[in-house]
Amino acid sequence: MLRLIEVLGIIAFALSGLIEARRKKMDFVGTYAIAFVTALGGGTLRDLLLNRQPVWVLHQEYPLMIMVLVIGALIIFRLKKFVLTEHTIIIPDGLGLGLFSASGTAAAFGMDLPPFVCVVMGVITATFGGVLRDIVCNKIPVIFRRSELYATCSFFAAAAYWGGRVLGVDHALSATASIVIALGLRMLATKFHLRLPM
Amino acid sequence: MLRLIEVLGIIAFALSGLIEARRKKMDFVGTYAIAFVTALGGGTLRDLLLNRQPVWVLHQEYPLMIMVLVIGALIIFRLKKFVLTEHTIIIPDGLGLGLFSASGTAAAFGMDLPPFVCVVMGVITATFGGVLRDIVCNKIPVIFRRSELYATCSFFAAAAYWGGRVLGVDHALSATASIVIALGLRMLATKFHLRLPM
Amino acid sequence: MLRLIEVLGIIAFALSGLIEARRKKMDFVGTYAIAFVTALGGGTLRDLLLNRQPVWVLHQEYPLMIMVLVIGALIIFRLKKFVLTEHTIIIPDGLGLGLFSASGTAAAFGMDLPPFVCVVMGVITATFGGVLRDIVCNKIPVIFRRSELYATCSFFAAAAYWGGRVLGVDHALSATASIVIALGLRMLATKFHLRLPM
Repeated sequence: MLRLIEVLGIIAFALSGLIEARRKKMDFVGTYAIAFVTALGGGTLRDLLLNRQPVWVLHQEYPLMIMVLVIGALIIFRLKKFVLTEHTIIIPDGLGLGLFSASGTAAAFGMDLPPFVCVVMGVITATFGGVLRDIVCNKIPVIFRRSELYATCSFFAAAAYWGGRVLGVDHALSATASIVIALGLRMLATKFHLRLPM
Repeated sequence: MLRLIEVLGIIAFALSGLIEARRKKMDFVGTYAIAFVTALGGGTLRDLLLNRQPVWVLHQEYPLMIMVLVIGALIIFRLKKFVLTEHTIIIPDGLGLGLFSASGTAAAFGMDLPPFVCVVMGVITATFGGVLRDIVCNKIPVIFRRSELYATCSFFAAAAYWGGRVLGVDHALSATASIVIALGLRMLATKFHLRLPM
Repeated sequence: MLRLIEVLGIIAFALSGLIEARRKKMDFVGTYAIAFVTALGGGTLRDLLLNRQPVWVLHQEYPLMIMVLVIGALIIFRLKKFVLTEHTIIIPDGLGLGLFSASGTAAAFGMDLPPFVCVVMGVITATFGGVLRDIVCNKIPVIFRRSELYATCSFFAAAAYWGGRVLGVDHALSATASIVIALGLRMLATKFHLRLPM
């Protein structure tokens, strides 16, 4: 189940990169690079900071899956005028946001790092792919400006995961709590246009 | 004493990030991220290049201190119209510039790396946080364009530290020389609007 | 021979950084930083992803060579109105593109990484310096938009290297094949303005 959500999350993140790349009129190389960076950039930065090898370096199925996805999406967009927006993928994106917050926190937790660092690693894992996407696309990262609680959802999801593990709850259940919190809070924030007070 | 200067330097760097983030109308998430990157980004890049774990990953007091600072500053700015500019923080910024040039050089020196690499590591530590701040804020890094000898001050401070250590001077005294050189040269450059000839 | 091509490639990459930095009216610090990042950024990212120390950290002759080159070029540009464009350096740039695709693939191949990851590492090594150059110069990476098959040349060169090694061909011969493919394809693409169909 968590495995399926991981795949859904990576697909949603890659698609959000693809959407932005199309807006910037990139060709296949650019579209693939942006989709790759958006989907795997957060986890890659986390692994560099934790001084270990990024997961995709040992598992080519991740970059290959994104390549198949990008080629498939570009062909579909050619064949029919299908408009894909961030709104279309909001549910898989929210699932990925929660799960990656949990898995980033888990990686740091497993190395006995301090609590705040564990939560920060969760937030970096879940949100930094999108930050890198925006930097490469030459705009100020959207989650730093008019986000409807994107990083904030990730923060609470990561904190919940950490709290669960400290209380002795296992990985799967803590990660599920993360996903529920991130997705629920994100849906609420989008529906009511919630923003941070400052 | 060096410990106090380190804290002052981190605060000055974080504030320079906060100033830029406010200019770009970022919310709390963006402001904290930019302050974090400006204060800790240079040291983080140095540690990645030296293939070791960034200091803040093991010491959550760094990211927590920046969070307290950002929250405090945002509240103060709300309460009264207090205008903070780069000019206000020029002295703590100069102190940080000198000390981080020294500490970056020290890290490479301790690993017996070649002289020029030691100095480059000092300059990266002291200046790259500001470079990353500008990249994320979607502008060309200011120290690459109209800097009043910012990276140059760091270069001479780092070289002085390296020279001191090679001559057998201890860390504290070499670092003090770095700080004096960086701060002095920076004040002169700012006062007389010194720039590189090319 | 490969050694000579490596030096030529680094010079070509550094010059392409210098050209862009001059366009953005950077001073010496900015010009050196961009030349450095363009020439060594791709290999540095590859080494970080492979969790090992970047080559230039142990070998100061690389950053020093780039410094001499930048100082020399800036003096020459001062003395006489010499216009250097990307077109002038297209042959050494193509040689570097091929060789760095091969050397990046070789590094991953030597660690028994999966085939697609080996090729991706080759492409990152050869093209990411230019991507970083464009990001720091605040523009969308040119190879993501209107490239005349730049990353594509690198991909086929890297794949050819990998194929050679798998078939038992030695490093030097496989790298030569890479260089011939990258340079040949790049010349064709430039001459006929070839682009990807999507």
